[in-house]
Amino acid sequence: MLRNIPSILSPDLLWTLRAMGHGDELVIADANFPATALGARCHRLDGVTATDVLQAVLTVLPLDQFVPNPAVVMEVVDDPNAVPPIVAQFQDITTTTADNPAAMGKLERFAFYDRAKSAFAIVQTGETRLYGNIILKKGVIGV
Amino acid sequence: MLRNIPSILSPDLLWTLRAMGHGDELVIADANFPATALGARCHRLDGVTATDVLQAVLTVLPLDQFVPNPAVVMEVVDDPNAVPPIVAQFQDITTTTADNPAAMGKLERFAFYDRAKSAFAIVQTGETRLYGNIILKKGVIGV
Amino acid sequence: MLRNIPSILSPDLLWTLRAMGHGDELVIADANFPATALGARCHRLDGVTATDVLQAVLTVLPLDQFVPNPAVVMEVVDDPNAVPPIVAQFQDITTTTADNPAAMGKLERFAFYDRAKSAFAIVQTGETRLYGNIILKKGVIGV
Amino acid sequence: MLRNIPSILSPDLLWTLRAMGHGDELVIADANFPATALGARCHRLDGVTATDVLQAVLTVLPLDQFVPNPAVVMEVVDDPNAVPPIVAQFQDITTTTADNPAAMGKLERFAFYDRAKSAFAIVQTGETRLYGNIILKKGVIGV
Amino acid sequence: MLRNIPSILSPDLLWTLRAMGHGDELVIADANFPATALGARCHRLDGVTATDVLQAVLTVLPLDQFVPNPAVVMEVVDDPNAVPPIVAQFQDITTTTADNPAAMGKLERFAFYDRAKSAFAIVQTGETRLYGNIILKKGVIGV
Amino acid sequence: MLRNIPSILSPDLLWTLRAMGHGDELVIADANFPATALGARCHRLDGVTATDVLQAVLTVLPLDQFVPNPAVVMEVVDDPNAVPPIVAQFQDITTTTADNPAAMGKLERFAFYDRAKSAFAIVQTGETRLYGNIILKKGVIGV
Amino acid sequence: MLRNIPSILSPDLLWTLRAMGHGDELVIADANFPATALGARCHRLDGVTATDVLQAVLTVLPLDQFVPNPAVVMEVVDDPNAVPPIVAQFQDITTTTADNPAAMGKLERFAFYDRAKSAFAIVQTGETRLYGNIILKKGVIGV
Amino acid sequence: MLRNIPSILSPDLLWTLRAMGHGDELVIADANFPATALGARCHRLDGVTATDVLQAVLTVLPLDQFVPNPAVVMEVVDDPNAVPPIVAQFQDITTTTADNPAAMGKLERFAFYDRAKSAFAIVQTGETRLYGNIILKKGVIGV
Amino acid sequence: MLRNIPSILSPDLLWTLRAMGHGDELVIADANFPATALGARCHRLDGVTATDVLQAVLTVLPLDQFVPNPAVVMEVVDDPNAVPPIVAQFQDITTTTADNPAAMGKLERFAFYDRAKSAFAIVQTGETRLYGNIILKKGVIGV
Amino acid sequence: MLRNIPSILSPDLLWTLRAMGHGDELVIADANFPATALGARCHRLDGVTATDVLQAVLTVLPLDQFVPNPAVVMEVVDDPNAVPPIVAQFQDITTTTADNPAAMGKLERFAFYDRAKSAFAIVQTGETRLYGNIILKKGVIGV
Repeated sequence: MLRNIPSILSPDLLWTLRAMGHGDELVIADANFPATALGARCHRLDGVTATDVLQAVLTVLPLDQFVPNPAVVMEVVDDPNAVPPIVAQFQDITTTTADNPAAMGKLERFAFYDRAKSAFAIVQTGETRLYGNIILKKGVIGV
Repeated sequence: MLRNIPSILSPDLLWTLRAMGHGDELVIADANFPATALGARCHRLDGVTATDVLQAVLTVLPLDQFVPNPAVVMEVVDDPNAVPPIVAQFQDITTTTADNPAAMGKLERFAFYDRAKSAFAIVQTGETRLYGNIILKKGVIGV
Repeated sequence: MLRNIPSILSPDLLWTLRAMGHGDELVIADANFPATALGARCHRLDGVTATDVLQAVLTVLPLDQFVPNPAVVMEVVDDPNAVPPIVAQFQDITTTTADNPAAMGKLERFAFYDRAKSAFAIVQTGETRLYGNIILKKGVIGV
Repeated sequence: MLRNIPSILSPDLLWTLRAMGHGDELVIADANFPATALGARCHRLDGVTATDVLQAVLTVLPLDQFVPNPAVVMEVVDDPNAVPPIVAQFQDITTTTADNPAAMGKLERFAFYDRAKSAFAIVQTGETRLYGNIILKKGVIGV
Repeated sequence: MLRNIPSILSPDLLWTLRAMGHGDELVIADANFPATALGARCHRLDGVTATDVLQAVLTVLPLDQFVPNPAVVMEVVDDPNAVPPIVAQFQDITTTTADNPAAMGKLERFAFYDRAKSAFAIVQTGETRLYGNIILKKGVIGV
Repeated sequence: MLRNIPSILSPDLLWTLRAMGHGDELVIADANFPATALGARCHRLDGVTATDVLQAVLTVLPLDQFVPNPAVVMEVVDDPNAVPPIVAQFQDITTTTADNPAAMGKLERFAFYDRAKSAFAIVQTGETRLYGNIILKKGVIGV
Repeated sequence: MLRNIPSILSPDLLWTLRAMGHGDELVIADANFPATALGARCHRLDGVTATDVLQAVLTVLPLDQFVPNPAVVMEVVDDPNAVPPIVAQFQDITTTTADNPAAMGKLERFAFYDRAKSAFAIVQTGETRLYGNIILKKGVIGV
Repeated sequence: MLRNIPSILSPDLLWTLRAMGHGDELVIADANFPATALGARCHRLDGVTATDVLQAVLTVLPLDQFVPNPAVVMEVVDDPNAVPPIVAQFQDITTTTADNPAAMGKLERFAFYDRAKSAFAIVQTGETRLYGNIILKKGVIGV
Repeated sequence: MLRNIPSILSPDLLWTLRAMGHGDELVIADANFPATALGARCHRLDGVTATDVLQAVLTVLPLDQFVPNPAVVMEVVDDPNAVPPIVAQFQDITTTTADNPAAMGKLERFAFYDRAKSAFAIVQTGETRLYGNIILKKGVIGV
Repeated sequence: MLRNIPSILSPDLLWTLRAMGHGDELVIADANFPATALGARCHRLDGVTATDVLQAVLTVLPLDQFVPNPAVVMEVVDDPNAVPPIVAQFQDITTTTADNPAAMGKLERFAFYDRAKSAFAIVQTGETRLYGNIILKKGVIGV
């Protein structure tokens, strides 16, 4: 464990967050997400909720200010306007924690998979609520 | 996720539990344990307590009946007779969940490290309570 | 061996079943199937029948409810309507064991090979009956 | 599958049998044996009995004629004179199948583990009968 | 060496023959063939003739009965109808040894290279006679 | 770059600091130190001073409270009582930044090398002042 | 450290500069650049400015005389004619240090990323000023 | 060193020459050539001239008799008819040493790079004369 | 194939002969020798006799003149004075082919194995005559 | 090639010289030296003399001032007082080129091998003069 850094950020996840650059994307995925199949870099946080991971990640990761939706979630299959409770929580956490608390975008299930495939990394959590998936685009820190 | 298998048993941990044989040992370690340095095979379960991991592991892992203490914990430094609350919980979980609920043995801190070095694998949990470390020796399943 | 988990699920196969996500596919193949050539991840269960493997796999793997045919078999070459005895057994096992016992789909031999190529993994069994091949699509487990 | 070669000899096991030389040893182990921990080369034949594996191996592997006991089994713990049924079967198979059907030797449990550690390879079978372990020393084929 | 298996089948070549499935192809190539450049899996049998290798391989490898020409040779450059002596020998060996002794097909030099590129493996022999190259397609063994 | 984490902590160094456990040691070494030869894990921070690295590391790394000297420096060759200016700076930074600002220990040059060999990792900085080397022992964070 | 070679040129960066040939390109990137994602070979110089790295690199690397702009920088997003102070410094350093001090070219942000992807290597510096990125094309040294 | 084999043929280069087959190509390149970037297999002979390497290679490598130009050089940029002195030397060495001393072909600079990319290997020499690059196509040795 | 180099010297064996230095040893072993188990570098020449390999190797490999017996064979078990026919042939080939045709030394079977373990490489031939094993110590070539 | 750095220092050798620290040793070896067998890191400079390599290396490598003999050569076998011409040249080059031109030490042949085994790296040159071997101990560069 380290001082002042949330302890659920594992060594590999910290490495990834620090190595990512402007525009690189991180997927926080639920326990049913095909993360191993899609992601070249796949970190696991079994037993931890996606909302706890999002909260911890946003304390260190800046969000991109060059795009309108630096965070994107997955649409409910056959009900694109639905907002599952976990997605509402994602928005709350982003609003209160992120350095750049913009509104979230949305992607259809297979379009979400395609974008996840080219992400920098996927974090597979132990989240058992369906639709517990979110993509974050990293921003810059200047002087 | 799978049917009938606790979901905090990650793919790597399941592999390890299944590949272990009679007499092989697994260390469940707390968040401060030097697991990466000591263990050739080191699985991480950041953000999960050691007690939750022990509970899940014992639902599938048989304990060794060929030795008196198939489970061993770490002595408190400078107070070898102390029983930290988490150790008492370890004993309760073992008594109620294991197929062979024997009493636990104890090892001094550096003797515990030495034994951990030759274990089959170490699981580093996110347990923040001190002394949240336990070694389990696998038993046999016959017909 | 582990408690409550069928012992023909090897360490590697357990890893694969646990690491697969929603929509990922597993091929259970007979002893003549070109599994090494087609599959990036190829697990062997020489000496075990495909029906025993299917039975064991379905005790832990949920089938996909988002598609009409979460299980698919290979058509007999030059006789697409034939139902070899082993395929009838596959249907029986699925009906009695799966969490989602849907009817099976069918694919022509080379179309079956193409789909196998993009599967998450192939299990090569020791099945000597011809047409002892089946593809399973993993489903979700929610709360 | 190949013509005239028993189909439970997997690709890796065939490689090993062919690559072994005079005096190299192969361990056929039961499902509880700590094979992954002990063996640098570990082949799995989950779901197959140790007696079926022994039968198949001896059809191709010559036994060493330079030593009195080219096959060695494990003593029963606390009852070294006992002959478990599977050991009697091992002797029968060797007598009827081997090119050099000598009587078997015996080793205490931990001495057996030590010798297994320096073997050329270990085959972990799905044998569920206890004491289903045997070490074979390869012989020569001359002209 | 093993009992009842031709000793020029090396450990790697035995592995390959056993791991190949229905429809996979093996190239037996002469000493001038660009085998390292073309083949992902390249086994060498320097100092052995291609005809000796073909003889040994066909004692264990079944030929495909689903295609008219399960064996294919290379056409002589600028003289496609020529039949070099080694090709006549290939046909003789196939006729007397194979389980499915069909007539051979022919491919132009660069078409032969292209097909070799997608073969399961290439065996580079020490054959010094020109055009000592042959592709074999593996068949099935049923019950 | 990340929010609230000093930017000279590279991805690899962050990984190391987070993966280290109680009692593991980190060496911060100057530009002349034989770090590649001694250290299994060697991270480079060319162009950065050892004092800047120490300052950044101590903002996240807890020092061990179970030993009297959780930080150790190298004695000047042939003048063991000398205190080079950089060592005085090391003590100042530790006193003002560490969670456990104990006094530093000292080791003769080759004893320092031996201890560095068994460290968790070595960070080779661009420090050009001689004797710019320090070993830190990680402590615990409890609840 | 070595005689007569700037000490911020790390072992890996020296290797790269020496292994590059005529026309190969090196990217010197700022701390926000997505270097790990884009570059097959990625060297880090955390804590060092891009201008210090450029100065050191140009003391040993010849610039290409076969093209008009052997050095290329990134255009400011939405303000392509702007010249950030760091770019002006890049030009000064090139003019005074390079063997071939040509004027710099410019590329739009995503075109710059595309070209970086096929570069020989990327050096990620600790530069915190925005737009601190430059591509250098290596020239020849003749006799 | 070996008897009767030129000592500048390094172990790796000898391996390559022996492993190449009919039609495979070797590039002998000068010190400015982008060999590491272009070649999957890149052998270095720093400090040796390209002409010495050509001389040594042709004592063992047969040239292809199936094509008109089994050796190809690079055209001078902007002066395709020029014949640099080193190219004249290449022709002399080929004429006096090769088993098949045909006239050389020529390729424009970038076409030469493209062909080098698909060569079997590139040897980067220490040749400092410009245009010291040549491609050789291997021939056959029959009986 | 190459000009003037015996074609049974495979690419790997040529690499080894060229990379060996003064005092390094090569074992030429028969088909029953435990070469894979003993040798870190093991090259196979299945189907070729040990005498053909010795003949080819000695055309390029100098024997050591600093020791009395630069070639050593294995004693017959239980008959140390016997000279098997193949050993007589080894002596003849050495006498007629080597640059330094000294008399051979002898080693007891297990002493021979021990020395083989620290050899530079072992060549496993297809030699079926027993005791077809020989160790060669490489000499120097000066000017 | 690079400006101001001798071109026979290959990329790997430059990496090694830069990565070495105080007290690390480099062996420059002749063409008969068993460098591959002894050295974990072995760089080749076939076709280049040991004296040319020494000259180039000493332009960048500082010699150790903490020991009396930072350069050591090999004694002539059976004539320890002899000074072969190449050793005299080594001394001349060191005197005129090194930053710390001390007198050379000497080691008996096998003691020299033992020390080479623990060196940081060995450079195998193409030097054909016997006894063309020298060990260099790296010094420090301070401010």
